[in-house]
Amino acid sequence: MFISRRAKEIQASPIRKLKPFADEAKQRGIHIFHLNIGDPDIPTPKPIIRAFHQYNGPILGYGPSQGFEELRQAIADYFAGYDLKLTADNVLITIGGSEAIHFSFSVVADPGDEIIIPEPFYTNYNGYATFADVKIVPLPLKVEDGFRLPPTERIEALITPRTRAILLCSPNNPTGTVYSEEELSRVIELVKKYDLFLIGDEVYKEFVYDGLKQKSILEYKEIEDRVIVVDSISKRFSSCGARIGAVITRNEEVYQTILKFAQARLCPPSVEQYAALAAYRMGMGYFEPIRQEYQRRRDVLFEGLTSIPGVVLGKPQGAFYVICRLPVKDSEHFVQWMLTDFSLNNKTVMVAPGPGFYATSGRGQDEVRIAYVLKEEDLSEAIEILRQGLEKYQKLFS
Amino acid sequence: MFISRRAKEIQASPIRKLKPFADEAKQRGIHIFHLNIGDPDIPTPKPIIRAFHQYNGPILGYGPSQGFEELRQAIADYFAGYDLKLTADNVLITIGGSEAIHFSFSVVADPGDEIIIPEPFYTNYNGYATFADVKIVPLPLKVEDGFRLPPTERIEALITPRTRAILLCSPNNPTGTVYSEEELSRVIELVKKYDLFLIGDEVYKEFVYDGLKQKSILEYKEIEDRVIVVDSISKRFSSCGARIGAVITRNEEVYQTILKFAQARLCPPSVEQYAALAAYRMGMGYFEPIRQEYQRRRDVLFEGLTSIPGVVLGKPQGAFYVICRLPVKDSEHFVQWMLTDFSLNNKTVMVAPGPGFYATSGRGQDEVRIAYVLKEEDLSEAIEILRQGLEKYQKLFS
Repeated sequence: MFISRRAKEIQASPIRKLKPFADEAKQRGIHIFHLNIGDPDIPTPKPIIRAFHQYNGPILGYGPSQGFEELRQAIADYFAGYDLKLTADNVLITIGGSEAIHFSFSVVADPGDEIIIPEPFYTNYNGYATFADVKIVPLPLKVEDGFRLPPTERIEALITPRTRAILLCSPNNPTGTVYSEEELSRVIELVKKYDLFLIGDEVYKEFVYDGLKQKSILEYKEIEDRVIVVDSISKRFSSCGARIGAVITRNEEVYQTILKFAQARLCPPSVEQYAALAAYRMGMGYFEPIRQEYQRRRDVLFEGLTSIPGVVLGKPQGAFYVICRLPVKDSEHFVQWMLTDFSLNNKTVMVAPGPGFYATSGRGQDEVRIAYVLKEEDLSEAIEILRQGLEKYQKLFS
Repeated sequence: MFISRRAKEIQASPIRKLKPFADEAKQRGIHIFHLNIGDPDIPTPKPIIRAFHQYNGPILGYGPSQGFEELRQAIADYFAGYDLKLTADNVLITIGGSEAIHFSFSVVADPGDEIIIPEPFYTNYNGYATFADVKIVPLPLKVEDGFRLPPTERIEALITPRTRAILLCSPNNPTGTVYSEEELSRVIELVKKYDLFLIGDEVYKEFVYDGLKQKSILEYKEIEDRVIVVDSISKRFSSCGARIGAVITRNEEVYQTILKFAQARLCPPSVEQYAALAAYRMGMGYFEPIRQEYQRRRDVLFEGLTSIPGVVLGKPQGAFYVICRLPVKDSEHFVQWMLTDFSLNNKTVMVAPGPGFYATSGRGQDEVRIAYVLKEEDLSEAIEILRQGLEKYQKLFS
């Protein structure tokens, strides 16, 4: 029977396809340190849990397609804390950051159109690109360069008549890079020159370290019509399972068009929106201790990994991921082997193979993404397991 | 700036675009009986509300992309109550029935491919068709024929090499028709003959009257590989704002492919899934009083409408909608006029203009959809308002 081409082409989640091996290891009594997925262990803030408890019905009906106004206003207020002037009408609530990506891709591009994205990039861009039949044009970055943006000519060379947007994720999943003002301005020049949209995935906004500040693309007045920002409460408030995100844009036509997509799916979940509202009402004070916690984890991870022979990585500046090169030929095989064949005191480590973060075939094969979403003690133990695993693996397979 | 063609083409919700006029009427102190949208006034069952209260964290993390196994099993068990043998692995939890439609369209069709749908049909099929760049080929039905399916040749004539599926919604939104076994078998013959999928939107399964039974397309063993059913708790448990639906299929390849789409959006909301689980655990006894309530409303509505001169409609057999012809030339104008210019004792009625339920340009212009989602007393009053409104409107505009 005919299955659509796009359905066949869509990539199975490279992280999730290893799950059977992880399940099987668990059945053998092996404890797995999960550094493969950005599912933080920080408890969900109490006001979110309380919002569920306070929900009283009586009818769990449809809400507005653009989301509840109070929540849209609360998000505008949150950005005001960063001196960004937005109104509730610049904010459209989505079902997770995922839907915000899907809406953004669909509003800027028709089937066959192109969006340039620095590579490696968040796996699910692939999924939504296939879903929306849009072509991702990867801009290859390298671990040796700390995944910084290349000279402008290299980016410009990728622009074609079908290019519709450039997407920048900063702080970056999976590399941990935070783009500098210099890098952003170069991209902005191109966006103006070639009449493109600039999509910003800024869901890790709060996770920047060493006193660095994330510069939002919403801060650039000169291109305010061209900017679409993808946002989410998933990581910001340890609420990945709530599925509340947002699209933020000052372009009225883009907003109204996305609203039409939003109307087709009726509305985001209602009670989860109340929960998100409670989260934003906690105020900015909530973030600092969390940021410090992740910075400490980052430090533990970075020191640990750099002490392993053959491991190459730059110091992540934000988010809670790093892409590093390992002394292996096939990281998928290594990651799987760690689940099926290796353990230390009945424990092992799961990381995410590199190729899933690349659109260019063959890239990332000696790389993995590590998410530092566990507490320092666990992280230290996980790194030790990784060190010994690598040592044994190299003896067996080189 | 370039906005995608599909974004421009997507239809604004014909129901929601009248909202400003309704808001304005409310500001003038007019009470509106909302018969325009299927947002039931039946209270959400207590076990659903309690499930929110029982949610305890500590971390609202990602769930499985296919949904929690307990919920998938509970849905399989629910169908077992209809002698339908399904396993949890035939059920994939979606974010509302909307996402189930989107997934179904995307798995069977590539951009430009065709899906045949009897017309009038649920507005949001249009939205998802444009979103997925799939072409809906309408099969025109008529109010005079009670919106029954036409002779097989008429359906067959619409099949082209790009036809991928036929979609049947039964009980039907917006017509209230429940397809007979005879009608279903004729469609099934075509599905086999032309190697198509059969998509069933059966979210109104519980709402059938006069002792009639809804025949699910899942009951047909001979085409079990070709069947994809769209399901939702929204109407079944008065939980439209929960956004929990499901795709049900015994075709393993379709299931696994949809799972890849599902992985791109990570997971459905977690707490809402616990709420849905609590709903299904109430058992089949929950539905009978609700069904009786809607049947009484249907009776009040049908009697009332048939007594208005010039109104044409068949007796709805299921769901809680009816499409009827009014003695007006332009139902959009009439619906808007009822909001802007008419009231009776400071009350008016809002219904949904017909054209929004048609893909064929020009059809439905003298029709409206009425949702009988209000209690009998309100419904009677609403019909009286409609009667007097129509009378005055005809004098003014004919």
